Amino acid sequence: MNTVVQKFTADGITVVGGIPSMTSSPEEIADFAARADVLTVNLGTLDAERRRVILRAVEVVNAAGKPWILDPVHCDYSPSRLAFAQELIALGPTIVRGNAAEMALIGSTGPGLRIQTGEVDRIGSGGEGVRVANGHRWMAEVTGTGCLTGGVIAAFMAVEPDALVAAASALAVTGVAAELAAPLSRGPGSFGVAFLDALSAIGERELLTHARIHYDQD
Amino acid sequence: MNTVVQKFTADGITVVGGIPSMTSSPEEIADFAARADVLTVNLGTLDAERRRVILRAVEVVNAAGKPWILDPVHCDYSPSRLAFAQELIALGPTIVRGNAAEMALIGSTGPGLRIQTGEVDRIGSGGEGVRVANGHRWMAEVTGTGCLTGGVIAAFMAVEPDALVAAASALAVTGVAAELAAPLSRGPGSFGVAFLDALSAIGERELLTHARIHYDQD
Amino acid sequence: MNTVVQKFTADGITVVGGIPSMTSSPEEIADFAARADVLTVNLGTLDAERRRVILRAVEVVNAAGKPWILDPVHCDYSPSRLAFAQELIALGPTIVRGNAAEMALIGSTGPGLRIQTGEVDRIGSGGEGVRVANGHRWMAEVTGTGCLTGGVIAAFMAVEPDALVAAASALAVTGVAAELAAPLSRGPGSFGVAFLDALSAIGERELLTHARIHYDQD
Repeated sequence: MNTVVQKFTADGITVVGGIPSMTSSPEEIADFAARADVLTVNLGTLDAERRRVILRAVEVVNAAGKPWILDPVHCDYSPSRLAFAQELIALGPTIVRGNAAEMALIGSTGPGLRIQTGEVDRIGSGGEGVRVANGHRWMAEVTGTGCLTGGVIAAFMAVEPDALVAAASALAVTGVAAELAAPLSRGPGSFGVAFLDALSAIGERELLTHARIHYDQD
Repeated sequence: MNTVVQKFTADGITVVGGIPSMTSSPEEIADFAARADVLTVNLGTLDAERRRVILRAVEVVNAAGKPWILDPVHCDYSPSRLAFAQELIALGPTIVRGNAAEMALIGSTGPGLRIQTGEVDRIGSGGEGVRVANGHRWMAEVTGTGCLTGGVIAAFMAVEPDALVAAASALAVTGVAAELAAPLSRGPGSFGVAFLDALSAIGERELLTHARIHYDQD
Repeated sequence: MNTVVQKFTADGITVVGGIPSMTSSPEEIADFAARADVLTVNLGTLDAERRRVILRAVEVVNAAGKPWILDPVHCDYSPSRLAFAQELIALGPTIVRGNAAEMALIGSTGPGLRIQTGEVDRIGSGGEGVRVANGHRWMAEVTGTGCLTGGVIAAFMAVEPDALVAAASALAVTGVAAELAAPLSRGPGSFGVAFLDALSAIGERELLTHARIHYDQD
């Protein structure tokens, strides 16, 4: 996980019932990855050592047949970061999640369920896929909501083997939480706080009432 | 301090009157450690360089006869982290603080006052010791409350030479702050914020009214 | 940006309309710096690799004639950090911003507009300069408000070529935001949140009503 949003992402994973652990140490990554039910690879902080650590973590989870999600943060900012994202995609992530600019560079080919988050989140590519239309504009003003959403998707993948179901549910849960949080907030600062509160409290009734999930088929 | 919770911990130390400073640079650690009244070693982020930096910091404070506290975060996740924690314990920390899983591995022998935090915090081992029964369940849903508590213990050790008194007071203060914060909160997000408010405002009257400190003797 | 306050600073830059991006990777820094309209160099976390990365970033923005701001965090804590700050000042930052202890060591010579933040912020040196008298005492109890203020100055420098105008405006905006946030807060925790809310909402009317900017001339 990139260093900017570690606590916010860890809090988000915790309040939905997951147990986050974050390391970028070569000595420890194999032990940590072996304990994990699912791996999130977030490229938001990236140097030579982190690249080695990420490749080792992917090797461990791939060998164990566990799911993993790639978040190619800002791969549109640096050719070397994009090249590394593509190297990772070739290793078969279960899910690749990014914003429109990132996913445009990632392309639609290759393994891994594609998720493009934005005003409307799009899961899958081509004619078939799922759209999730929940969320609030303040999510874009709080650093790390995208990374936190990736963390919640990962937490759901730990208990739901169908990646599309896990992802659609996680996107609906985070989007509805944002919608419930916004009216209780005065701006992006209090929204970030209320968003965690809502994410912690959200239940079946709120989801059934507010989730806007659409299934598209050719 | 591990990178996940640096700001939250720094905020906690600041609002109780301490001045936090965090570095993991080999070039700087000796100067920073020499300025400090007390050192906190938190293993939550750990790689080869951080190990060297930690050993140098401990060397500086040990030579100066200053107190230091070890927080063996997630030493139950990786054998290499546990081995390093034990190497540090041999260097004589004033206090070792961890959760039940961590402290079970650390064992009850060796120098250093043992503190096991949880629903009830236990200071000391064997039949003699102090229990602090303050706190709130939301502390477990906010990443970093344990690390922040370690930081507050350190801040108290800077002005109170008796480690047991410093630790019991710090645990009571953080636990009572949590109890005061919870009724003002809607969930873990707003609880984390209200906890810092309460920690900043807490005074003699709140402590005398709410602290639940018990002294056990064989 | 130092690792302690990355998210808080990124949130502050975002809510005033900037787009923050933070890297300390040697492979990426040139690409990131080339994309940026302005560079902030914050010394709060500093090791050998970060020094190399900072020097490369400065080289890129200097070659492109772009503005940059130096925040010599805690240069009073370590001689090696102070020496590096002075090496950077010789490279001609547009602005150097620090607190009283830091700026006393930096001295008043050399290129770069001097800004000393505190109860009253002072821009410029000698008899001529600008004082900004906005702010609130809780800013000192929230880790990172100084770094965030540096980030807001940088965001303003991206659109205002006159560094003094950009800095005075940014200091007034952050100071007034703090004044508006304080009455809505119960302590430093909720103040940090309300400060981001106010920074996001602040407009021409609040500034004209509350800004206390004084121009001093010999």
